[in-house]
Amino acid sequence: MKFSQLAQQIAAADRTSLATHPNGDPEIIGVAAIEEATSGNLSYVEGSKFAAEVSKTAASALILPLDEALQTQATTRQIAWIATSQPRLAFAQAIALFYQPFRPAPEIHPTAVIHPSAQVGEEVAIGAHVVIQAGVKIGNQVCIHPNVVIYPEVKVGDRTTLHANCVIHERAQIGSNCVIHSGAAIGSEGFGFVPVREGWFKMEQSGYTVLEDGVEVGCNSAIDRPAVGETRVARNTKIDNMVHIAHGCQVGEACAMAAQVGLAGGVKVGNRVILAGQVGLANGAQMGDGAIASAKTGVHGNVLPGETVSGYPAVPHRLYLKASAVYNRLPEMYQTLKRLQRQLGNDS
Amino acid sequence: MKFSQLAQQIAAADRTSLATHPNGDPEIIGVAAIEEATSGNLSYVEGSKFAAEVSKTAASALILPLDEALQTQATTRQIAWIATSQPRLAFAQAIALFYQPFRPAPEIHPTAVIHPSAQVGEEVAIGAHVVIQAGVKIGNQVCIHPNVVIYPEVKVGDRTTLHANCVIHERAQIGSNCVIHSGAAIGSEGFGFVPVREGWFKMEQSGYTVLEDGVEVGCNSAIDRPAVGETRVARNTKIDNMVHIAHGCQVGEACAMAAQVGLAGGVKVGNRVILAGQVGLANGAQMGDGAIASAKTGVHGNVLPGETVSGYPAVPHRLYLKASAVYNRLPEMYQTLKRLQRQLGNDS
Amino acid sequence: MKFSQLAQQIAAADRTSLATHPNGDPEIIGVAAIEEATSGNLSYVEGSKFAAEVSKTAASALILPLDEALQTQATTRQIAWIATSQPRLAFAQAIALFYQPFRPAPEIHPTAVIHPSAQVGEEVAIGAHVVIQAGVKIGNQVCIHPNVVIYPEVKVGDRTTLHANCVIHERAQIGSNCVIHSGAAIGSEGFGFVPVREGWFKMEQSGYTVLEDGVEVGCNSAIDRPAVGETRVARNTKIDNMVHIAHGCQVGEACAMAAQVGLAGGVKVGNRVILAGQVGLANGAQMGDGAIASAKTGVHGNVLPGETVSGYPAVPHRLYLKASAVYNRLPEMYQTLKRLQRQLGNDS
Repeated sequence: MKFSQLAQQIAAADRTSLATHPNGDPEIIGVAAIEEATSGNLSYVEGSKFAAEVSKTAASALILPLDEALQTQATTRQIAWIATSQPRLAFAQAIALFYQPFRPAPEIHPTAVIHPSAQVGEEVAIGAHVVIQAGVKIGNQVCIHPNVVIYPEVKVGDRTTLHANCVIHERAQIGSNCVIHSGAAIGSEGFGFVPVREGWFKMEQSGYTVLEDGVEVGCNSAIDRPAVGETRVARNTKIDNMVHIAHGCQVGEACAMAAQVGLAGGVKVGNRVILAGQVGLANGAQMGDGAIASAKTGVHGNVLPGETVSGYPAVPHRLYLKASAVYNRLPEMYQTLKRLQRQLGNDS
Repeated sequence: MKFSQLAQQIAAADRTSLATHPNGDPEIIGVAAIEEATSGNLSYVEGSKFAAEVSKTAASALILPLDEALQTQATTRQIAWIATSQPRLAFAQAIALFYQPFRPAPEIHPTAVIHPSAQVGEEVAIGAHVVIQAGVKIGNQVCIHPNVVIYPEVKVGDRTTLHANCVIHERAQIGSNCVIHSGAAIGSEGFGFVPVREGWFKMEQSGYTVLEDGVEVGCNSAIDRPAVGETRVARNTKIDNMVHIAHGCQVGEACAMAAQVGLAGGVKVGNRVILAGQVGLANGAQMGDGAIASAKTGVHGNVLPGETVSGYPAVPHRLYLKASAVYNRLPEMYQTLKRLQRQLGNDS
Repeated sequence: MKFSQLAQQIAAADRTSLATHPNGDPEIIGVAAIEEATSGNLSYVEGSKFAAEVSKTAASALILPLDEALQTQATTRQIAWIATSQPRLAFAQAIALFYQPFRPAPEIHPTAVIHPSAQVGEEVAIGAHVVIQAGVKIGNQVCIHPNVVIYPEVKVGDRTTLHANCVIHERAQIGSNCVIHSGAAIGSEGFGFVPVREGWFKMEQSGYTVLEDGVEVGCNSAIDRPAVGETRVARNTKIDNMVHIAHGCQVGEACAMAAQVGLAGGVKVGNRVILAGQVGLANGAQMGDGAIASAKTGVHGNVLPGETVSGYPAVPHRLYLKASAVYNRLPEMYQTLKRLQRQLGNDS
């Protein structure tokens, strides 16, 4: 594809975007990271700190931020460029022009075991050794990769993809345009045990899990169903690998949870909340809309909308940065304090 | 079911329990969380802090603690109620009256691949695409969901359930009345490597994993087998999702481990120990009977029986609470200390 | 096997090793941990702190360190012994003499579904219900356990083992002599989303994952592929259970990562790096050759080659030990500081 054509297709919504090709209109044959790009590649940088990369890249074209110095640099090196306020978004759009994700043909493999009471929509791909149990409803253009198991009474919305070896448990409701990655378990039994004299009395988990439209769940994550009612993840929330969402959690829209995050039972998370890697939310924790927890944070109480918290136990991020800086001086502070006590004649 | 019938069936062991229906004997058709309950539902609250919920619930019946104010409140609102010292247990018993967990019929699916030397008990359900290898012994009334793989020489006790896509490795011994959830790996190879000049020399893991009766293991958890001897989880211990138990660990009876807990190799855990979410126990750590580690705690040494520890590195919980409270004042303390030093003429 | 024969086969490379059998040449029938060993067993200890175990073990033979006191002790108890500078390595070699890991016969199970365009080498074992998709190339003597799913265009090198229910995603390249444990996902889609007004714009992950020769990946771990380019784990690196390696990470040779470690996108890890359990490496973190992060450490910046770091945020291990020791005295320090302020007449 000619660079000029490509430039018309990406960053189209960004009226501030510019594009130029100082040395002819190069043929773009693929996308690459800037340090790996070769002739014919389009690449991108996100800010002026990447000037050194621009000075030596072999890319034929670049997506740049709205930064005149970088633009001049690219022009001088005779690299075609597009400048936009969102270079990463434009690069994502560019990848989609060159890369077609693997998608099996809409066929039902003869080794799939589908219960006669299950309903399957149109143009559905069902891979080898998939098991679909009683009362399941599968929408249109759904793609179910091999060895997926779907327990009874599950609903799967249109255009949703279930990757290999994931398991969808009884009564789960998965919306449209969702992606469940390999090995994830949706609607699995919540961890409900009441302590009794002999050990633990099992509380049956009679509820179900709901994933609204556009939710993604990463590899080997689990989203449990509760004793009564529902666990819910609202639309467009994206969940990375090995995330645990316990029974009865309520997660808002358009959140992002990085890998190995854990939510204890009944946790409430607002809209557009961001949880970085290995964050834990304890029983009763709440995160308001737009709140952020940085990596490894342990949240116990209520995080206000828009607040960023860090540390364990979680504190406002600015306080965390200050306290962490002082933490390294604790041994020195301890010695100083001892010395002052001696000086004042009151060490015990 | 009439409320009066239901009241006879739950909390039966609790002699202090009371039950009354101030406005006729309502028909109970299901159970629900108190904020979601509608007419015909039974719900529960655990303490007086839920008085506001009792004041507005639409539930027809409630399980209450032994709290006269709540009881009076329910009576005034003409809600039938049962009062007991263990409302959560009674609610768990009530759920079991209304909810029948999904259980496949005791049949062996024709697509299951079972080695001729395997022994399978009576009334066993074996789902589609299950693989059972040489020398495996399956007890009676076992339920094996689709796509489970059982390696050679495994034993599975009576009435145990193996959920979809879990894997039971060679020589593992799983007791009776166990539940292994989707994607869990039992008896997998321990992480045994000896550092050598070229990298790592693999120590073969010739041992096996034992789960005693009544153990549950959550989705995508793994309990490894050791180089020699056994990894053991004693009876009635309950393990949540994505828990890692390394080779050679010895875990006692009736413990509970929340999600994403990790036990390093050879860790010893006593009876009735509770490990909250994302706790880590390092090599050589020990937890005495009844000890508790709160969420995200990192344990290195020996936790005494009955002790509660928190933080990383783990300290007694009370000390942790105090130290955490001071942590937030570290920046302020540092400034104060500097000021005192200047005042005393000895800042360097 | 006679002890004398066994002694010739292990620790052969260690010229400093010694062996003696003070009471005849015992027949060794197996290996065991020292506290569980019975007559006919070979066991080992790693240092003088295990003298009490040597004094009471029922083992017929021991592998000892180069410690004369322990050797005398064994001789006195008429236990045959081998002394070496690396007892654990010698014990690993001894296990391999007695234990033959389970390995299925080199046959292709009739229920496996193999795309006609896939190429399969010689002496390959392919288990029941395995799915191998278009364009896959499988080397010689590969062992693929049941219910594994391999997406299109994957390469698997000679003598590699894929355990049950693992999933290898499109274009992944797995070297020779690798082991992928049950439920692991290799080459799965990286977590790539660009924030936009409506939520998140998906960045397609057009790259692939490379595992070089001799890499092991534990149960239910995931190693994602990036948007462009590759995620790479270099040769002989060993990865435990439930480890997350995000898109675009570059991991060096002969590293070891314990369970539940998480690497954020684009992290760079040098050669022979050791990451203990539950360590997290944030975006942009780097670990130099030979660096070590102790359990639960959270690394944000650049760890120098050979450095050991601990804590969250990570600091040099020695500083961490000192600061942790003082941490417990924070409440006391706070009180002391208040008292000094009062004494100096300047408390506010």
